Amino acid sequence: MLAARRLLPRGRPALASRCLASSSKSRMQILETVDAFRQARRALPPNATLGLVPTMGGLHAGHMSLVQQAKRSCDFVAASIFVNPAQFGPNEDYSKYPRTFEKDVALLEQQGVDLVFFPSADEMYSPHHRCYVDPEGFDDLVEGQRRKGHFRGVATVVSKLFNIVQPTHAFFGQKDAAQVVLIQRMVSDLNIPVEINVVPVVREADGLALSTRNQYLSPEERQAATVLHRGLVHAQDLFQQAKQSGKTTVDAAALRDVVREEYEREALVTAIDYVSVGSKETMQEVAEVDTAEGAIISVAVKLGQCRLIDNIVL
Amino acid sequence: MLAARRLLPRGRPALASRCLASSSKSRMQILETVDAFRQARRALPPNATLGLVPTMGGLHAGHMSLVQQAKRSCDFVAASIFVNPAQFGPNEDYSKYPRTFEKDVALLEQQGVDLVFFPSADEMYSPHHRCYVDPEGFDDLVEGQRRKGHFRGVATVVSKLFNIVQPTHAFFGQKDAAQVVLIQRMVSDLNIPVEINVVPVVREADGLALSTRNQYLSPEERQAATVLHRGLVHAQDLFQQAKQSGKTTVDAAALRDVVREEYEREALVTAIDYVSVGSKETMQEVAEVDTAEGAIISVAVKLGQCRLIDNIVL
Repeated sequence: MLAARRLLPRGRPALASRCLASSSKSRMQILETVDAFRQARRALPPNATLGLVPTMGGLHAGHMSLVQQAKRSCDFVAASIFVNPAQFGPNEDYSKYPRTFEKDVALLEQQGVDLVFFPSADEMYSPHHRCYVDPEGFDDLVEGQRRKGHFRGVATVVSKLFNIVQPTHAFFGQKDAAQVVLIQRMVSDLNIPVEINVVPVVREADGLALSTRNQYLSPEERQAATVLHRGLVHAQDLFQQAKQSGKTTVDAAALRDVVREEYEREALVTAIDYVSVGSKETMQEVAEVDTAEGAIISVAVKLGQCRLIDNIVL
Repeated sequence: MLAARRLLPRGRPALASRCLASSSKSRMQILETVDAFRQARRALPPNATLGLVPTMGGLHAGHMSLVQQAKRSCDFVAASIFVNPAQFGPNEDYSKYPRTFEKDVALLEQQGVDLVFFPSADEMYSPHHRCYVDPEGFDDLVEGQRRKGHFRGVATVVSKLFNIVQPTHAFFGQKDAAQVVLIQRMVSDLNIPVEINVVPVVREADGLALSTRNQYLSPEERQAATVLHRGLVHAQDLFQQAKQSGKTTVDAAALRDVVREEYEREALVTAIDYVSVGSKETMQEVAEVDTAEGAIISVAVKLGQCRLIDNIVL
């Protein structure tokens, strides 16, 4: 811990005393520079597996399911906490993104995480920074249109984290379907030597996907929110029936209609942002789903003021 | 060799018999797939250094100086031979780029190269390929304006090669100054764990930089071509005088003028494509050169039908 502490850049808040106090019991190291992280990485046994869970902090049960999966799969686990300015648009408030470092560190420590990478924005982006990993076509996706440059920012920072942390495995949640396809696309396109593990969406008993936003739903909206998953399951049933009856393709419009009709029947749904049927390889909208290949149906819906997303893999 | 041979994709020319005949004397392996290369890479001792010399084939003395430097610096040396379609513009003839595989392999074997990566275009770019390493601003450089997307193609393929080969060191020639800055920029921006070694321009006794194009010069043009380096040295002298006299900046226009005047005095120079004074960090044109930081002067000039480039680092 002491070596890491000495590397704290001036002007950043010192690590919470709670974290330091527990350091004698725990061997979790918090590294704030690329050099310090690389040194800690080199100290791991050369053939050990290392799982990375990249986060922007604000940790919740969804992140914990990734950490737990990493703990089960790998000898060592690293998490990164970095609010990445490159993935925020000019109209999105980077400075107001929740930063809950002390709570995040306590959660990661409880889970037995070994290394935490917690760099500053200056440590990650030099004034001369020019090179971005650009995923062509992702800005045209339904999620990308609203946030030009968002996926480029995600791909760039994840590429950097892979190069710094050098994990053997990395863990991403299926909850963000476009991000999963993006990361798999990038790893394949750029031949990055890491195994991507996709952790299924964690759901409440009634099917609602876990989200920090669920707490903002009124009791009635919370009840109505079960419609998101229900609509997706209906479309999945339609797809499975077609596949079992020997069809080689299913009309994507028919799948979208099943979902939309379900959502339109729910009075508390104030807007359907999109219902997308996209390629597993590129997330590009498809006209027909090959029953052998499958696809991903992803949705964004407003319930009152709250925008919820979900998806299902066919 | 046999394992590598079995991986030859159908429809590609078989390796030359000359190469196979010498395989009993040499341990050079030629790998044509990412998986085969990774397997050969894993067979190297874990702490050994591995130097990579990326090439598009058509090897000449310039490449050999890179290989020799790699041999001096590293325990093992890998070379890649790949004519990268992503760095050719629509008006540039990818299909006509010289392919001299047998000769290249013989040269690499003579130098004691250990591993050769020789993938097909299909092996490197899947039909779903979307992710490119995009170096913002490089298309605006004097060399980039003529070849939109060229630097993106170079950055992408070198990033892929680094991920496949996983070299500890990589070797690039200062001859292509913009490419050197691009690769250093990318390694820094994306935190790629490799040490970039820049090998100085190899010159004839009279200062002319080695180039395959020099053979197309008439005897008179060959004599006149010494002007390229001479102009650059005059500018360097001006910069050094200013620095030694205590100046903190030198006007970039004055440096460009010294070079241009020298070139304009040579009647066989038919065109001066550009004389650029660029940042060592980004190659972006500068108005003033900080004498502590230096800069790169790079030039492209036509002598008859032949376009020659050169540069000098201040």
